[in-house]
Formats: sequence, structure tokens, C-alpha cells
Amino acid sequence: MSIFFYGCITLDGYLADKNHGLDWLCQTGTTEETGYADFYRGMDITLMGKRTFLALAQMGDPATVYPTTQNIVFTHTALDQEGFTAVSGDPVDFVKGLEQDKNIWVVGGNTVLAPLLEQDMVEHIILQVAPVLLGAGVPLFSQAEGLKRFRLEDVRRYGAFAELVYSKP
Amino acid sequence: MSIFFYGCITLDGYLADKNHGLDWLCQTGTTEETGYADFYRGMDITLMGKRTFLALAQMGDPATVYPTTQNIVFTHTALDQEGFTAVSGDPVDFVKGLEQDKNIWVVGGNTVLAPLLEQDMVEHIILQVAPVLLGAGVPLFSQAEGLKRFRLEDVRRYGAFAELVYSKP
Repeated sequence: MSIFFYGCITLDGYLADKNHGLDWLCQTGTTEETGYADFYRGMDITLMGKRTFLALAQMGDPATVYPTTQNIVFTHTALDQEGFTAVSGDPVDFVKGLEQDKNIWVVGGNTVLAPLLEQDMVEHIILQVAPVLLGAGVPLFSQAEGLKRFRLEDVRRYGAFAELVYSKP
Repeated sequence: MSIFFYGCITLDGYLADKNHGLDWLCQTGTTEETGYADFYRGMDITLMGKRTFLALAQMGDPATVYPTTQNIVFTHTALDQEGFTAVSGDPVDFVKGLEQDKNIWVVGGNTVLAPLLEQDMVEHIILQVAPVLLGAGVPLFSQAEGLKRFRLEDVRRYGAFAELVYSKP
């Protein structure tokens, strides 16, 4: 089982603005230049919170965005969206319950990422840092206090974005 | 007048741990490899908060750390340290009151940086990102809400650190 976080944050560490909007991030650069297509091709499952799903749904048909993965939304309410499955449990329990070895992409948000970080289950962190300060918003990192070391694998530049690639040591 | 922030942060955006300790950061990599010597040579004035000064003083003689700059500590109490001047006013007012064009390095902490960011007075942000999560501590960015765009000038790697270089557009 390999768990990846891959996504954009601002220089001040926000995943999204206070209204959970993501538009400003995608406007800053072009995804065509990045390694996203290769990354996505390697993934089997996506995990996301309800608010990430809703932000995605606002931008178009979610099924066309993540067409080849099994897509899990952690929510206590039902979901009427082809290609997406509502799961009411905990991300840690869900991952531990998977029987086969899978590549899992944590799309967002921090309520999904935090428990997985706390359990040292996140193997790869790939961040595109947008050249923007927001001063408020939804932070990527909200895990409990605790020193966790990673290994810097690579530093790249895609236009206005700096991409930082980390793995568990 | 050019104002620079130059310094280490964790992957989750902390300048220091909850006790304002900085040791863990410097242990991660070697400063010899970086552009620090060239950077410091170009600076005329350093600005820092009282807690940054105290953390510095704990690590040795502050005068030997910043020997060629004029060093300003924002504090309401007196300071008995050669080479360092206590200033009880506001960082913004202090900088605006300088008569000559100077290169100013904001060493830390966030209470000094935040008002300068809010006034769009910070021209250069140079971050060394340590491959570490803390989960709690003193955040670098604590400025008020507001979208601020920077231009990514360079992305470098120094050992375990990723260095991101930004300027005002």
C-alpha cells in the first residue's frame, strides 16, 4: 500500500481559500507542463473529503476528472455521483481494510490527510507551491503535534510553480 | 529600500517549534553549501523580534552571528547586547523612517514580518524548506487575509533543503 499526497498549496500553506475555492490555484499555471498525467496513471484509488468533492463538482463533471481510479468520498451522507463512492468511516480504517496493494492518492482535504500523517501512513508528498499568499483559508497540514522527517527526493520548477517531492525515509 | 525575508521553515510552515527553538532546523542540513554568505554580505540591517533575539542569544554570542549589519530588535524592554539596538516602535514605521536606501533582512519572527507583508513592503522571500513536519510551532506567515502574488525567481536544492526564491512582481 502506498499513500500519496499530490496537490497545490500556497506559499503560506493553504489548500484552498476560506470558501473552499480552488480556482485561483489552477489559474496560476498550466497543468499540461507538469507530471500530473504520469502521476494519475499510476494511481488506483483517490481519497477525498466532502468539501473537496463539492469543490470538484462545482468545476464540472467529477467522473471525467478522475476516470480510471476508484474514488472514495468520506462523508456521512449519500452521494449520487457515478464513479464516486461515499464512505462514512475513518480514512485510516478504510486504507487498513483494503485487501490488495494499491496506490492511493489523497486529493484532499486536511481532515483526510491528517489522520494518515499521524499514523505515519503517508509515503509520498508531492507539493506544487503556488507563488501566492492568502493569509487565510484551508490549511493542508492540520495533523497533531509531532516531529516527522521526510526525505527530499526532487525539486522541480513548472512555470510559476515549485514542485517539492518527498518520501518517507 | 529592499526588504528581504530569508530563512528556514518546515514543510508545514513553521519557523520554530512551540518553545521557539530553532536547533532542529539547523541540524537538518549544512549552511556551508547554501548562498547564505553571499546573501548576508549584501545586507545592511537586520530586523528581528524579541523571541528571535533570545533564541539567537541562547545559541552563542549574537554579535558574532551578525557582525557587519546594524541589528534591530523590536522590544519594549532595554537590551544589553553589543551590536544590537532595541526599538520599541513598529517595523513599518521604522523602515519608513530610514533616510538612506538600505537592504533589510527580516530574520524573524512573524510579528515583524506580518505588518511588512500587509503593507506590501517585502520585496524578496527566500525560503529554505526543511524536510520536516512539526504539527505545531511558530508559523512564518501570520499576516492578515489578502491575496498577494509573488514571482518565482528560482528553485534550488541544498542537500535536504529546497530553496524557493520569490520577488514582488
